[in-house]
Amino acid sequence: MMKIGGNVIDDASALTEVLTAFSKFEGAKILVHGGGKEASKLAEKLGLLPQMVDGRRITDAPMLDVVVMTYAGLLNKKIVAKLNAFGTTAVGFSGADGNLILSKKRKIGVVDYGFAGDIVSVNHQLLVTLLNNNITPVCCAITHDGNGQLLNTNADTIASELASALADFYDVELCYCFEKKGVLMNSEDEHSVIEILTEETYDDLLKTSTIHSGMIPKLDNCFAALKKGVKTVTIGHHSLIGNKNSNHTKVQLQAYENH
Amino acid sequence: MMKIGGNVIDDASALTEVLTAFSKFEGAKILVHGGGKEASKLAEKLGLLPQMVDGRRITDAPMLDVVVMTYAGLLNKKIVAKLNAFGTTAVGFSGADGNLILSKKRKIGVVDYGFAGDIVSVNHQLLVTLLNNNITPVCCAITHDGNGQLLNTNADTIASELASALADFYDVELCYCFEKKGVLMNSEDEHSVIEILTEETYDDLLKTSTIHSGMIPKLDNCFAALKKGVKTVTIGHHSLIGNKNSNHTKVQLQAYENH
Repeated sequence: MMKIGGNVIDDASALTEVLTAFSKFEGAKILVHGGGKEASKLAEKLGLLPQMVDGRRITDAPMLDVVVMTYAGLLNKKIVAKLNAFGTTAVGFSGADGNLILSKKRKIGVVDYGFAGDIVSVNHQLLVTLLNNNITPVCCAITHDGNGQLLNTNADTIASELASALADFYDVELCYCFEKKGVLMNSEDEHSVIEILTEETYDDLLKTSTIHSGMIPKLDNCFAALKKGVKTVTIGHHSLIGNKNSNHTKVQLQAYENH
Repeated sequence: MMKIGGNVIDDASALTEVLTAFSKFEGAKILVHGGGKEASKLAEKLGLLPQMVDGRRITDAPMLDVVVMTYAGLLNKKIVAKLNAFGTTAVGFSGADGNLILSKKRKIGVVDYGFAGDIVSVNHQLLVTLLNNNITPVCCAITHDGNGQLLNTNADTIASELASALADFYDVELCYCFEKKGVLMNSEDEHSVIEILTEETYDDLLKTSTIHSGMIPKLDNCFAALKKGVKTVTIGHHSLIGNKNSNHTKVQLQAYENH
Protein backbone atom coordinates (compact mmCIF):
# COMPACT_ATOMS: atom_id res chain seq x y z
CA MET A 1 0.00 0.00 0.00
CA MET A 2 1.62 3.21 -1.12
CA LYS A 3 0.43 6.77 -0.89
CA ILE A 4 1.95 9.48 -3.07
CA GLY A 5 1.46 13.16 -2.45
CA GLY A 6 0.97 16.25 -4.55
CA ASN A 7 4.59 17.18 -5.09
CA VAL A 8 5.39 13.85 -6.73
CA ILE A 9 2.32 14.05 -8.97
CA ASP A 10 3.13 17.60 -10.07
CA ASP A 11 6.55 16.62 -11.37
CA ALA A 12 6.19 14.48 -14.53
CA SER A 13 9.64 12.88 -14.26
CA ALA A 14 9.25 12.14 -10.52
CA LEU A 15 5.85 10.60 -11.22
CA THR A 16 7.23 8.39 -13.98
CA GLU A 17 10.07 7.31 -11.67
CA VAL A 18 7.66 6.44 -8.84
CA LEU A 19 5.24 4.57 -11.08
CA THR A 20 8.04 2.64 -12.76
CA ALA A 21 9.32 1.50 -9.35
CA PHE A 22 5.79 0.76 -8.14
CA SER A 23 5.14 -1.37 -11.23
CA LYS A 24 8.14 -3.53 -10.37
CA PHE A 25 6.74 -4.49 -6.96
CA GLU A 26 5.52 -8.05 -7.04
CA GLY A 27 2.39 -9.19 -5.27
CA ALA A 28 -0.81 -7.42 -4.34
CA LYS A 29 -0.49 -3.64 -4.24
CA ILE A 30 -2.62 -0.52 -4.02
CA LEU A 31 -1.74 3.07 -4.84
CA VAL A 32 -3.44 6.04 -3.17
CA HIS A 33 -2.83 9.52 -4.48
CA GLY A 34 -3.50 13.10 -3.47
CA GLY A 35 -3.33 16.02 -5.83
CA GLY A 36 -4.18 19.13 -3.85
CA LYS A 37 -1.76 21.39 -5.73
CA GLU A 38 -3.30 20.52 -9.11
CA ALA A 39 -6.77 21.12 -7.70
CA SER A 40 -5.71 24.52 -6.37
CA LYS A 41 -4.27 25.42 -9.79
CA LEU A 42 -7.53 24.53 -11.55
CA ALA A 43 -9.55 26.39 -8.89
CA GLU A 44 -7.49 29.51 -9.46
CA LYS A 45 -7.95 29.29 -13.24
CA LEU A 46 -11.70 29.13 -12.61
CA GLY A 47 -11.55 32.13 -10.28
CA LEU A 48 -12.22 30.12 -7.11
CA LEU A 49 -10.21 30.86 -4.01
CA PRO A 50 -8.79 27.73 -2.33
CA GLN A 51 -9.34 27.94 1.44
CA MET A 52 -7.43 25.74 3.87
CA VAL A 53 -7.73 25.32 7.66
CA ASP A 54 -4.97 23.28 9.39
CA GLY A 55 -3.91 21.83 6.06
CA ARG A 56 -7.46 20.68 5.25
CA ARG A 57 -9.42 22.11 2.36
CA ILE A 58 -12.77 23.85 2.73
CA THR A 59 -14.86 22.18 0.04
CA ASP A 60 -17.90 24.17 -1.11
CA ALA A 61 -19.94 22.90 -4.08
CA PRO A 62 -17.83 24.48 -6.88
CA MET A 63 -14.65 23.30 -5.13
CA LEU A 64 -16.05 19.77 -4.84
CA ASP A 65 -16.46 19.72 -8.64
CA VAL A 66 -12.87 20.90 -8.98
CA VAL A 67 -11.43 18.21 -6.71
CA VAL A 68 -13.55 15.47 -8.34
CA MET A 69 -12.40 16.58 -11.80
CA THR A 70 -8.77 16.80 -10.74
CA TYR A 71 -8.40 13.78 -8.46
CA ALA A 72 -10.82 11.25 -10.02
CA GLY A 73 -10.43 12.58 -13.56
CA LEU A 74 -7.16 14.08 -14.66
CA LEU A 75 -4.69 12.69 -12.13
CA ASN A 76 -6.26 9.28 -11.58
CA LYS A 77 -6.51 8.52 -15.29
CA LYS A 78 -3.00 9.78 -16.05
CA ILE A 79 -1.62 7.51 -13.33
CA VAL A 80 -3.74 4.54 -14.46
CA ALA A 81 -2.69 4.96 -18.11
CA LYS A 82 0.98 5.11 -17.12
CA LEU A 83 0.77 2.06 -14.84
CA ASN A 84 -0.92 0.04 -17.58
CA ALA A 85 1.85 1.11 -19.97
CA PHE A 86 4.36 -0.21 -17.42
CA GLY A 87 2.62 -3.59 -17.32
CA THR A 88 0.54 -3.18 -14.15
CA THR A 89 -3.19 -3.82 -14.64
CA ALA A 90 -4.43 -0.76 -12.81
CA VAL A 91 -8.04 0.32 -12.32
CA GLY A 92 -8.85 3.76 -10.94
CA PHE A 93 -11.24 4.12 -8.01
CA SER A 94 -12.99 6.82 -6.12
CA GLY A 95 -14.76 5.71 -2.97
CA ALA A 96 -18.05 5.78 -4.90
CA ASP A 97 -16.89 3.13 -7.39
CA GLY A 98 -18.14 -0.23 -6.21
CA ASN A 99 -19.04 1.48 -2.95
CA LEU A 100 -15.36 1.17 -2.02
CA ILE A 101 -15.28 3.85 0.68
CA LEU A 102 -18.40 5.04 2.44
CA SER A 103 -18.08 8.28 4.37
CA LYS A 104 -20.16 10.80 6.26
CA LYS A 105 -20.27 14.54 5.61
CA ARG A 106 -18.34 16.17 8.40
CA LYS A 107 -20.61 17.93 10.89
CA ILE A 108 -20.29 21.69 11.06
CA GLY A 109 -18.22 22.58 14.13
CA VAL A 110 -15.96 25.58 14.65
CA VAL A 111 -15.14 25.22 10.97
CA ASP A 112 -17.59 24.28 8.18
CA TYR A 113 -15.46 22.09 5.93
CA GLY A 114 -18.31 21.79 3.41
CA PHE A 115 -18.35 18.58 1.37
CA ALA A 116 -15.63 16.87 3.40
CA GLY A 117 -16.16 13.21 4.22
CA ASP A 118 -15.00 11.21 7.22
CA ILE A 119 -14.67 7.51 6.46
CA VAL A 120 -17.33 5.16 7.86
CA SER A 121 -16.41 1.86 6.20
CA VAL A 122 -14.26 0.23 3.53
CA ASN A 123 -15.53 -2.47 1.13
CA HIS A 124 -12.67 -4.86 1.88
CA GLN A 125 -14.35 -7.68 -0.08
CA LEU A 126 -14.10 -5.66 -3.29
CA LEU A 127 -10.43 -4.94 -2.60
CA VAL A 128 -9.70 -8.63 -1.97
CA THR A 129 -11.55 -9.60 -5.19
CA LEU A 130 -9.56 -7.06 -7.19
CA LEU A 131 -6.22 -8.07 -5.69
CA ASN A 132 -6.99 -11.77 -6.22
CA ASN A 133 -7.63 -10.97 -9.90
CA ASN A 134 -4.23 -9.25 -10.16
CA ILE A 135 -5.85 -5.84 -10.46
CA THR A 136 -4.08 -2.92 -8.82
CA PRO A 137 -6.55 -0.37 -7.45
CA VAL A 138 -5.48 3.26 -7.83
CA CYS A 139 -7.51 5.25 -5.32
CA CYS A 140 -8.09 8.98 -5.33
CA ALA A 141 -9.17 11.16 -2.42
CA ILE A 142 -12.91 11.18 -3.20
CA THR A 143 -15.50 9.16 -1.26
CA HIS A 144 -19.31 9.09 -1.18
CA ASP A 145 -22.07 9.05 1.41
CA GLY A 146 -24.12 6.23 -0.15
CA ASN A 147 -26.91 8.63 -1.06
CA GLY A 148 -25.35 9.97 -4.24
CA GLN A 149 -23.22 12.69 -2.68
CA LEU A 150 -19.49 12.73 -3.44
CA LEU A 151 -17.22 13.93 -0.64
CA ASN A 152 -13.63 15.17 -0.44
CA THR A 153 -11.54 12.99 1.87
CA ASN A 154 -7.94 13.22 3.01
CA ALA A 155 -5.71 10.87 0.98
CA ASP A 156 -3.47 9.99 3.95
CA THR A 157 -6.54 8.85 5.87
CA ILE A 158 -7.76 6.82 2.89
CA ALA A 159 -4.40 5.01 2.70
CA SER A 160 -4.50 4.30 6.44
CA GLU A 161 -8.11 3.03 6.34
CA LEU A 162 -7.57 0.84 3.26
CA ALA A 163 -4.42 -0.64 4.80
CA SER A 164 -6.26 -1.30 8.07
CA ALA A 165 -9.21 -2.92 6.28
CA LEU A 166 -6.83 -5.39 4.64
CA ALA A 167 -4.80 -6.21 7.76
CA ASP A 168 -6.94 -9.30 8.45
CA PHE A 169 -6.20 -10.72 5.00
CA TYR A 170 -2.64 -9.69 4.18
CA ASP A 171 0.62 -8.65 5.82
CA VAL A 172 0.19 -5.01 4.91
CA GLU A 173 3.09 -2.59 4.45
CA LEU A 174 1.98 1.03 4.34
CA CYS A 175 4.32 3.59 2.82
CA TYR A 176 3.74 7.34 2.68
CA CYS A 177 5.86 9.03 0.02
CA PHE A 178 6.36 12.76 -0.18
CA GLU A 179 8.99 15.37 -0.99
CA LYS A 180 11.05 14.95 2.20
CA LYS A 181 13.22 12.09 3.38
CA GLY A 182 11.03 11.36 6.38
CA VAL A 183 9.89 12.98 9.59
CA LEU A 184 12.51 15.61 10.44
CA MET A 185 13.75 16.73 13.86
CA ASN A 186 14.36 20.12 12.27
CA SER A 187 12.13 20.90 9.30
CA GLU A 188 14.93 23.10 7.88
CA ASP A 189 17.45 20.26 7.88
CA GLU A 190 16.87 17.45 5.36
CA HIS A 191 19.50 15.35 7.16
CA SER A 192 17.66 15.31 10.49
CA VAL A 193 15.45 12.31 9.62
CA ILE A 194 14.03 10.50 12.64
CA GLU A 195 14.81 6.87 11.79
CA ILE A 196 12.41 5.23 14.20
CA LEU A 197 9.42 7.08 15.57
CA THR A 198 7.51 5.40 18.40
CA GLU A 199 4.31 6.58 20.06
CA GLU A 200 6.32 7.62 23.09
CA THR A 201 8.77 9.76 21.15
CA TYR A 202 5.87 11.13 19.08
CA ASP A 203 4.17 12.34 22.28
CA ASP A 204 7.40 14.01 23.42
CA LEU A 205 7.94 15.69 20.06
CA LEU A 206 4.36 16.94 20.06
CA LYS A 207 4.87 18.55 23.47
CA THR A 208 7.94 20.43 22.24
CA SER A 209 6.17 21.30 18.96
CA THR A 210 9.05 19.66 17.08
CA ILE A 211 6.34 17.88 15.09
CA HIS A 212 3.59 20.25 14.02
CA SER A 213 0.98 21.26 11.43
CA GLY A 214 0.40 18.80 8.53
CA MET A 215 2.69 16.14 10.00
CA ILE A 216 0.32 15.58 12.95
CA PRO A 217 -2.67 14.12 11.05
CA LYS A 218 -0.24 12.11 8.89
CA LEU A 219 1.34 10.51 11.95
CA ASP A 220 -2.04 9.99 13.62
CA ASN A 221 -2.98 8.01 10.48
CA CYS A 222 0.24 5.98 10.78
CA PHE A 223 -0.37 4.99 14.41
CA ALA A 224 -4.05 4.27 13.73
CA ALA A 225 -3.02 1.81 10.98
CA LEU A 226 -0.46 0.09 13.23
CA LYS A 227 -3.07 -0.32 15.98
CA LYS A 228 -5.39 -1.98 13.48
CA GLY A 229 -2.79 -4.57 12.54
CA VAL A 230 -0.85 -3.05 9.65
CA LYS A 231 2.62 -4.65 9.81
CA THR A 232 4.92 -1.77 8.87
CA VAL A 233 4.48 1.94 8.27
CA THR A 234 7.16 4.08 6.68
CA ILE A 235 7.36 7.74 5.67
CA GLY A 236 9.94 8.85 3.16
CA HIS A 237 10.99 10.38 -0.12
CA HIS A 238 9.55 8.84 -3.29
CA SER A 239 13.00 7.56 -4.29
CA LEU A 240 12.59 5.18 -1.34
CA ILE A 241 10.31 3.04 -3.48
CA GLY A 242 13.12 1.76 -5.65
CA ASN A 243 15.72 1.78 -2.89
CA LYS A 244 14.70 0.46 0.50
CA ASN A 245 18.12 1.32 1.96
CA SER A 246 17.71 5.05 1.55
CA ASN A 247 17.02 7.13 4.63
CA HIS A 248 13.44 7.17 5.90
CA THR A 249 11.27 7.16 9.01
CA LYS A 250 9.91 3.91 10.33
CA VAL A 251 6.82 4.44 12.48
CA GLN A 252 6.42 1.87 15.27
CA LEU A 253 4.17 1.52 18.27
CA GLN A 254 7.14 0.55 20.47
CA ALA A 255 10.91 0.87 20.24
CA TYR A 256 11.40 -2.90 20.09
CA GLU A 257 9.02 -4.81 17.89
CA ASN A 258 8.15 -8.44 18.35
CA HIS A 259 8.45 -9.51 14.73
CA MET B 1 -25.94 -1.86 -22.92
CA MET B 2 -27.18 1.67 -22.76
CA LYS B 3 -25.60 4.86 -23.99
CA ILE B 4 -26.78 8.22 -22.69
CA GLY B 5 -25.89 11.51 -24.33
CA GLY B 6 -25.04 14.99 -23.18
CA ASN B 7 -28.55 16.41 -22.99
CA VAL B 8 -29.66 13.79 -20.48
CA ILE B 9 -26.55 14.29 -18.35
CA ASP B 10 -26.97 18.08 -18.32
CA ASP B 11 -30.45 17.88 -16.85
CA ALA B 12 -30.28 16.71 -13.21
CA SER B 13 -33.89 15.46 -13.06
CA ALA B 14 -33.64 13.66 -16.43
CA LEU B 15 -30.41 12.02 -15.27
CA THR B 16 -31.99 10.86 -12.01
CA GLU B 17 -34.96 9.48 -13.97
CA VAL B 18 -32.70 7.58 -16.40
CA LEU B 19 -30.47 6.19 -13.68
CA THR B 20 -33.45 5.12 -11.56
CA ALA B 21 -34.89 3.21 -14.53
CA PHE B 22 -31.48 1.78 -15.43
CA SER B 23 -31.01 0.56 -11.84
CA LYS B 24 -34.23 -1.43 -12.11
CA PHE B 25 -33.01 -3.47 -15.08
CA GLU B 26 -32.18 -6.97 -13.95
CA GLY B 27 -29.24 -8.91 -15.28
CA ALA B 28 -25.88 -7.81 -16.64
CA LYS B 29 -25.79 -4.21 -17.80
CA ILE B 30 -23.34 -1.54 -18.88
CA LEU B 31 -23.80 2.22 -19.11
CA VAL B 32 -21.81 4.39 -21.54
CA HIS B 33 -22.00 8.14 -21.29
CA GLY B 34 -20.97 11.17 -23.28
CA GLY B 35 -20.79 14.66 -21.86
CA GLY B 36 -19.64 16.98 -24.61
CA LYS B 37 -21.76 19.91 -23.48
CA GLU B 38 -20.29 19.88 -19.98
CA ALA B 39 -16.79 19.66 -21.45
CA SER B 40 -17.49 22.64 -23.70
CA LYS B 41 -18.76 24.63 -20.71
CA LEU B 42 -15.60 23.92 -18.72
CA ALA B 43 -13.43 24.71 -21.76
CA GLU B 44 -15.11 28.09 -22.14
CA LYS B 45 -14.64 28.90 -18.45
CA LEU B 46 -10.93 28.16 -18.94
CA GLY B 47 -10.77 30.36 -22.03
CA LEU B 48 -10.38 27.49 -24.49
CA LEU B 49 -12.34 27.53 -27.73
CA PRO B 50 -14.13 24.23 -28.46
CA GLN B 51 -13.64 23.29 -32.12
CA MET B 52 -15.83 20.72 -33.84
CA VAL B 53 -15.64 19.20 -37.35
CA ASP B 54 -18.61 17.06 -38.47
CA GLY B 55 -19.76 16.75 -34.87
CA ARG B 56 -16.36 15.50 -33.71
CA ARG B 57 -14.20 17.46 -31.35
CA ILE B 58 -10.70 18.65 -32.14
CA THR B 59 -8.75 17.60 -29.04
CA ASP B 60 -5.51 19.48 -28.47
CA ALA B 61 -3.55 18.91 -25.23
CA PRO B 62 -5.44 21.42 -23.03
CA MET B 63 -8.77 20.17 -24.42
CA LEU B 64 -7.76 16.56 -23.65
CA ASP B 65 -7.28 17.55 -20.00
CA VAL B 66 -10.73 19.17 -20.07
CA VAL B 67 -12.50 16.10 -21.49
CA VAL B 68 -10.65 13.74 -19.13
CA MET B 69 -11.63 15.90 -16.14
CA THR B 70 -15.22 16.21 -17.27
CA TYR B 71 -15.95 12.71 -18.60
CA ALA B 72 -13.80 10.49 -16.36
CA GLY B 73 -13.98 12.83 -13.36
CA LEU B 74 -17.06 14.92 -12.76
CA LEU B 75 -19.71 13.13 -14.83
CA ASN B 76 -18.54 9.56 -14.37
CA LYS B 77 -18.29 9.87 -10.59
CA LYS B 78 -21.64 11.67 -10.27
CA ILE B 79 -23.30 8.87 -12.25
CA VAL B 80 -21.50 6.14 -10.30
CA ALA B 81 -22.44 7.69 -6.93
CA LYS B 82 -26.09 7.96 -7.99
CA LEU B 83 -26.24 4.37 -9.29
CA ASN B 84 -24.74 3.04 -6.07
CA ALA B 85 -27.33 5.04 -4.13
CA PHE B 86 -30.01 3.33 -6.25
CA GLY B 87 -28.66 -0.10 -5.34
CA THR B 88 -26.58 -0.84 -8.45
CA THR B 89 -22.96 -1.72 -7.74
CA ALA B 90 -21.40 0.54 -10.35
CA VAL B 91 -17.70 1.03 -11.08
CA GLY B 92 -16.56 3.83 -13.37
CA PHE B 93 -14.20 3.08 -16.22
CA SER B 94 -12.18 4.92 -18.78
CA GLY B 95 -10.60 2.79 -21.47
CA ALA B 96 -7.30 3.04 -19.58
CA ASP B 97 -8.70 1.36 -16.46
CA GLY B 98 -7.85 -2.33 -16.62
CA ASN B 99 -6.80 -1.72 -20.22
CA LEU B 100 -10.52 -1.88 -21.08
CA ILE B 101 -10.35 -0.08 -24.43
CA LEU B 102 -7.14 0.20 -26.40
CA SER B 103 -7.15 2.79 -29.19
CA LYS B 104 -4.82 4.40 -31.69
CA LYS B 105 -4.31 8.15 -32.11
CA ARG B 106 -6.11 9.11 -35.31
CA LYS B 107 -3.69 9.83 -38.17
CA ILE B 108 -3.60 13.40 -39.41
CA GLY B 109 -5.63 13.58 -42.61
CA VAL B 110 -7.55 16.55 -44.02
CA VAL B 111 -8.33 17.35 -40.39
CA ASP B 112 -5.96 16.98 -37.43
CA TYR B 113 -8.27 15.77 -34.66
CA GLY B 114 -5.42 15.89 -32.11
CA PHE B 115 -5.71 13.42 -29.24
CA ALA B 116 -8.63 11.51 -30.75
CA GLY B 117 -8.51 7.72 -30.50
CA ASP B 118 -9.92 5.08 -32.82
CA ILE B 119 -10.65 1.82 -31.03
CA VAL B 120 -8.29 -1.11 -31.65
CA SER B 121 -9.53 -3.66 -29.13
CA VAL B 122 -11.80 -4.23 -26.14
CA ASN B 123 -10.78 -6.26 -23.08
CA HIS B 124 -13.90 -8.43 -23.13
CA GLN B 125 -12.50 -10.74 -20.43
CA LEU B 126 -12.48 -7.87 -17.95
CA LEU B 127 -16.07 -6.99 -18.87
CA VAL B 128 -17.20 -10.59 -18.42
CA THR B 129 -15.41 -10.81 -15.04
CA LEU B 130 -17.10 -7.60 -13.87
CA LEU B 131 -20.55 -8.64 -15.07
CA ASN B 132 -20.16 -12.10 -13.50
CA ASN B 133 -19.39 -10.37 -10.20
CA ASN B 134 -22.59 -8.27 -10.47
CA ILE B 135 -20.59 -5.13 -11.13
CA THR B 136 -22.08 -2.60 -13.58
CA PRO B 137 -19.35 -0.84 -15.56
CA VAL B 138 -20.02 2.85 -16.25
CA CYS B 139 -17.82 3.80 -19.18
CA CYS B 140 -16.83 7.30 -20.23
CA ALA B 141 -15.57 8.43 -23.62
CA ILE B 142 -11.85 8.25 -22.83
CA THR B 143 -9.52 5.50 -24.08
CA HIS B 144 -5.73 5.01 -24.07
CA ASP B 145 -3.03 3.92 -26.50
CA GLY B 146 -1.29 1.44 -24.18
CA ASN B 147 1.77 3.70 -23.95
CA GLY B 148 0.41 6.04 -21.30
CA GLN B 149 -1.45 8.42 -23.62
CA LEU B 150 -5.13 9.09 -22.94
CA LEU B 151 -7.31 9.68 -26.02
CA ASN B 152 -10.74 11.20 -26.60
CA THR B 153 -13.10 8.69 -28.23
CA ASN B 154 -16.68 8.99 -29.45
CA ALA B 155 -19.12 7.58 -26.86
CA ASP B 156 -21.48 6.13 -29.50
CA THR B 157 -18.58 4.17 -30.95
CA ILE B 158 -17.54 2.96 -27.51
CA ALA B 159 -21.08 1.64 -26.86
CA SER B 160 -21.10 -0.11 -30.24
CA GLU B 161 -17.68 -1.68 -29.74
CA LEU B 162 -18.38 -2.84 -26.16
CA ALA B 163 -21.70 -4.34 -27.27
CA SER B 164 -19.99 -6.10 -30.17
CA ALA B 165 -17.20 -7.44 -27.97
CA LEU B 166 -19.81 -9.09 -25.72
CA ALA B 167 -21.97 -10.53 -28.51
CA ASP B 168 -20.18 -13.89 -28.27
CA PHE B 169 -21.02 -14.19 -24.58
CA TYR B 170 -24.43 -12.59 -24.13
CA ASP B 171 -27.60 -11.70 -26.05
CA VAL B 172 -26.76 -8.02 -26.21
CA GLU B 173 -29.37 -5.27 -26.49
CA LEU B 174 -27.87 -1.91 -27.40
CA CYS B 175 -29.90 1.22 -26.69
CA TYR B 176 -28.91 4.76 -27.64
CA CYS B 177 -30.80 7.37 -25.60
CA PHE B 178 -30.88 11.01 -26.49
CA GLU B 179 -33.19 14.04 -26.49
CA LYS B 180 -35.33 12.94 -29.47
CA LYS B 181 -37.83 10.12 -29.80
CA GLY B 182 -35.80 8.32 -32.44
CA VAL B 183 -34.53 8.85 -35.97
CA LEU B 184 -36.85 11.41 -37.55
CA MET B 185 -38.03 11.64 -41.19
CA ASN B 186 -38.26 15.38 -40.62
CA SER B 187 -35.91 16.73 -37.98
CA GLU B 188 -38.41 19.53 -37.26
CA ASP B 189 -41.24 17.09 -36.51
CA GLU B 190 -40.93 15.07 -33.29
CA HIS B 191 -43.79 12.83 -34.45
CA SER B 192 -42.02 11.65 -37.61
CA VAL B 193 -40.14 8.82 -35.87
CA ILE B 194 -38.98 6.06 -38.24
CA GLU B 195 -40.12 2.94 -36.40
CA ILE B 196 -37.95 0.42 -38.22
CA LEU B 197 -34.80 1.48 -40.01
CA THR B 198 -33.13 -1.14 -42.22
CA GLU B 199 -29.86 -0.84 -44.10
CA GLU B 200 -31.79 -0.49 -47.33
CA THR B 201 -33.97 2.37 -46.13
CA TYR B 202 -30.90 3.96 -44.50
CA ASP B 203 -29.13 4.03 -47.86
CA ASP B 204 -32.18 5.63 -49.48
CA LEU B 205 -32.48 8.24 -46.73
CA LEU B 206 -28.78 9.05 -47.03
CA LYS B 207 -29.17 9.68 -50.78
CA THR B 208 -31.99 12.14 -50.19
CA SER B 209 -30.09 13.71 -47.24
CA THR B 210 -33.09 13.00 -45.03
CA ILE B 211 -30.55 11.57 -42.58
CA HIS B 212 -27.56 13.83 -42.18
CA SER B 213 -24.79 15.23 -39.95
CA GLY B 214 -24.43 13.66 -36.49
CA MET B 215 -27.02 10.95 -37.14
CA ILE B 216 -24.79 9.32 -39.78
CA PRO B 217 -21.94 8.17 -37.50
CA LYS B 218 -24.53 7.12 -34.88
CA LEU B 219 -26.34 4.89 -37.38
CA ASP B 220 -23.07 3.56 -38.77
CA ASN B 221 -22.30 2.47 -35.21
CA CYS B 222 -25.72 0.78 -34.97
CA PHE B 223 -25.28 -1.25 -38.15
CA ALA B 224 -21.69 -2.14 -37.23
CA ALA B 225 -22.93 -3.60 -33.92
CA LEU B 226 -25.70 -5.61 -35.63
CA LYS B 227 -23.20 -7.05 -38.11
CA LYS B 228 -21.02 -8.18 -35.20
CA GLY B 229 -23.87 -10.10 -33.61
CA VAL B 230 -25.59 -7.62 -31.30
CA LYS B 231 -29.23 -8.81 -31.05
CA THR B 232 -31.18 -5.54 -30.99
CA VAL B 233 -30.33 -1.89 -31.47
CA THR B 234 -32.74 0.90 -30.59
CA ILE B 235 -32.52 4.68 -30.67
CA GLY B 236 -34.94 6.75 -28.62
CA HIS B 237 -35.75 9.23 -25.92
CA HIS B 238 -34.43 8.50 -22.44
CA SER B 239 -37.96 7.94 -21.16
CA LEU B 240 -37.87 4.80 -23.32
CA ILE B 241 -35.79 3.14 -20.61
CA GLY B 242 -38.67 2.79 -18.22
CA ASN B 243 -41.32 2.32 -20.89
CA LYS B 244 -40.52 -0.02 -23.76
CA ASN B 245 -43.83 0.76 -25.46
CA SER B 246 -43.02 4.40 -26.11
CA ASN B 247 -42.18 5.44 -29.65
CA HIS B 248 -38.62 4.75 -30.82
CA THR B 249 -36.54 3.62 -33.77
CA LYS B 250 -35.55 -0.01 -34.08
CA VAL B 251 -32.47 -0.43 -36.26
CA GLN B 252 -32.38 -3.73 -38.19
CA LEU B 253 -30.24 -5.16 -40.96
CA GLN B 254 -33.32 -6.39 -42.81
CA ALA B 255 -37.05 -5.61 -42.76
CA TYR B 256 -37.95 -9.10 -41.54
CA GLU B 257 -35.75 -10.55 -38.86
CA ASN B 258 -35.28 -14.25 -38.32
CA HIS B 259 -35.59 -14.29 -34.55
